[in-house]
Amino acid sequence: MERNRLKNMDVALRLFLDAVAPTDRTERIPLEDADNRVLCKDITAPLDYPHYDQCILDGYAVRAEDTVGCSARNAKAMLPVKKGRVREGLCVSVHTGSAMPPGADALVPLEDVTEKDGRVLVLKEVKKREWVWSRGEGIAAGGVVLREGMQLKPTDIAMLAKVGMTHVDVYDKPRVLIIPTGDECVRRDASLGPGFVYEVNGLMCCLLVKRYGGNPTLHDIVPDDRGRLADALTGCREHDLVVTIGGSSAGKRDLMGRVVSSIGQVMYHGVAFHPGNHMGAGLIGVAEEVRPVAFLPGYTESCAVSAFMFVDPAIRKIGHYPPSQYGREPVQLTGDMSTPVGIRAVRKVNVRDGRARQVKLIAESADPGRYAYIVVPEETSLIESGQTAEAVYLE
Amino acid sequence: MERNRLKNMDVALRLFLDAVAPTDRTERIPLEDADNRVLCKDITAPLDYPHYDQCILDGYAVRAEDTVGCSARNAKAMLPVKKGRVREGLCVSVHTGSAMPPGADALVPLEDVTEKDGRVLVLKEVKKREWVWSRGEGIAAGGVVLREGMQLKPTDIAMLAKVGMTHVDVYDKPRVLIIPTGDECVRRDASLGPGFVYEVNGLMCCLLVKRYGGNPTLHDIVPDDRGRLADALTGCREHDLVVTIGGSSAGKRDLMGRVVSSIGQVMYHGVAFHPGNHMGAGLIGVAEEVRPVAFLPGYTESCAVSAFMFVDPAIRKIGHYPPSQYGREPVQLTGDMSTPVGIRAVRKVNVRDGRARQVKLIAESADPGRYAYIVVPEETSLIESGQTAEAVYLE
Repeated sequence: MERNRLKNMDVALRLFLDAVAPTDRTERIPLEDADNRVLCKDITAPLDYPHYDQCILDGYAVRAEDTVGCSARNAKAMLPVKKGRVREGLCVSVHTGSAMPPGADALVPLEDVTEKDGRVLVLKEVKKREWVWSRGEGIAAGGVVLREGMQLKPTDIAMLAKVGMTHVDVYDKPRVLIIPTGDECVRRDASLGPGFVYEVNGLMCCLLVKRYGGNPTLHDIVPDDRGRLADALTGCREHDLVVTIGGSSAGKRDLMGRVVSSIGQVMYHGVAFHPGNHMGAGLIGVAEEVRPVAFLPGYTESCAVSAFMFVDPAIRKIGHYPPSQYGREPVQLTGDMSTPVGIRAVRKVNVRDGRARQVKLIAESADPGRYAYIVVPEETSLIESGQTAEAVYLE
Repeated sequence: MERNRLKNMDVALRLFLDAVAPTDRTERIPLEDADNRVLCKDITAPLDYPHYDQCILDGYAVRAEDTVGCSARNAKAMLPVKKGRVREGLCVSVHTGSAMPPGADALVPLEDVTEKDGRVLVLKEVKKREWVWSRGEGIAAGGVVLREGMQLKPTDIAMLAKVGMTHVDVYDKPRVLIIPTGDECVRRDASLGPGFVYEVNGLMCCLLVKRYGGNPTLHDIVPDDRGRLADALTGCREHDLVVTIGGSSAGKRDLMGRVVSSIGQVMYHGVAFHPGNHMGAGLIGVAEEVRPVAFLPGYTESCAVSAFMFVDPAIRKIGHYPPSQYGREPVQLTGDMSTPVGIRAVRKVNVRDGRARQVKLIAESADPGRYAYIVVPEETSLIESGQTAEAVYLE
């Protein structure tokens, strides 16, 4: 894999994202489970909101015309009644949230009355509908509350609950089949001899897929065998995206490019970023449909970064989600950060008191502080110690 | 509740956070569930990482001394063997991840050899340990992998799996008792008459608590009755934090301040922010222990913002989490945003193409774009149309 044959990162990402399609599967779920899910259709209000003329302060419900000319110097006495129609000269004690009593059309707030000899003295004129939130004023029944494509947040879900909804229709979570491969990999519950390693990238990718809003399925480890790899890949009937791990390099045992070619088409193999430049992407045919495949390297560092770069935006697109948003902050580097020219490089840093020290992506995260990533663009090969860079909390 | 009696926001928040304590409860969980959890003790490696001398490229394992002086013009032929000790003049084909064969102490990468007549011609001198990742070089058994207080991310969990761990000890999630109150509230499965509303704030607060990393318990709706409110509050034996909703205003039925006083102490009632300024905070005695209470207003807008401001950082502190990080971006306001002087105001905006239009916090989120919040500081009472402000994706 020569550097000059590596696909430019932006081009590679665009090709890959062009190959994934937003899902049209939907499901109906209870509001309790709806946080961060995406509406698959417009929601119209089954009820008026509010569903009655609502008092929005504690006070007295009155007829506005009875308060004309009222002031502190010209208080008007009204007779408080408990129930019944509010007629001339009468008022009813109400509180925030009360229904407006029949006959009343305005509310005098508590601070604008005094009570004397069993009468309520109104100290201020109020207008019709003043301090009243009229039925349907928020949203009328049949009006659109939220639209298709909206990613629900807690306040949105509260709104849906206000108009009486208990369930919503949302897009299904993207289903991602994760296939760890490699003769050297053993299950994490097995014993470990020299030359063998625990398969951990599958677990890591599952956790990342969940973060991105996907629903991962972790396949058993597949050995470096063309037939078995092809069988595993074409088993993705229920999935929107296949992610394989390992076998993407250039060695004899690195079969993934050849396997994808044999059952579909490799879009590219080798991308100008680091770590992870051995990754590739393709399309495979499954039951007369086409499925996108990202084949990630087996080195955990490379696997992680290629998942950050490719799997994240793919899941966001399939699931109709907005792009992931990460915390970012400027940091000052405590040492030179040099990266290959022409390569987009992703480096991990330990951030403490605004200072960022480069660390290994794996196996060097025991120091106090937080860990973030710095994405170094292709045209930069050195960020000098003391310079400012943007730390991104990609995890 | 006079404005000049409102507690400054920063002071209120500091008092509240001083009253919540990081939990000392812990639990052991499988790695599959450990994303975003916080380690409650240092993790030392049970295995060396790597646990054997590992080849890091495809190539031939050799004795470094046999390659002295090798170059393209001075290739040295070696005899490839399948097994056994690597003695003078022998080599063993290896691949990435292979264990170094006994006797070998370096690796010649594939690109630095050619094969001819059953011999391997070495074209380059290699040093001892070159292209070999020695046992324990990443982390030696007994060395610290990750430290107490670290919030686990997918790459950290991968590292723990590499050294053979299947479970980790983490701090328990903060347990939050959420108590919705109010005679006007009915359960969401009940029928709804005038003067009654669905209780939706409890659901909203549960979703927010989960986002912040807490474990919510939603109490039944409690009517506006001092005794029943006090009973509900003191039922929080298993909880780290109590959040009540409603009854925090200044009306006759707003009992929360009085109830908290009767079973503990109100730290403050009324904070200089909007919406939500009727909120309060206190401490109550429960089984000879003290529990912090946040009492939030019942208006959903106010409830949401006071949860954003107070419940979020409290849960982060209790759970040993780092502070929440939110996406932020500069946006240009499409209209004047005026807020009361001396009050920290939180306003919702619809963001589209970098332009932000103020919307109601609830019941006005049907337009395309994303929804964010703008936090207007106390000393600002007007941000003019066309000015730039920072949008924060608090949800």
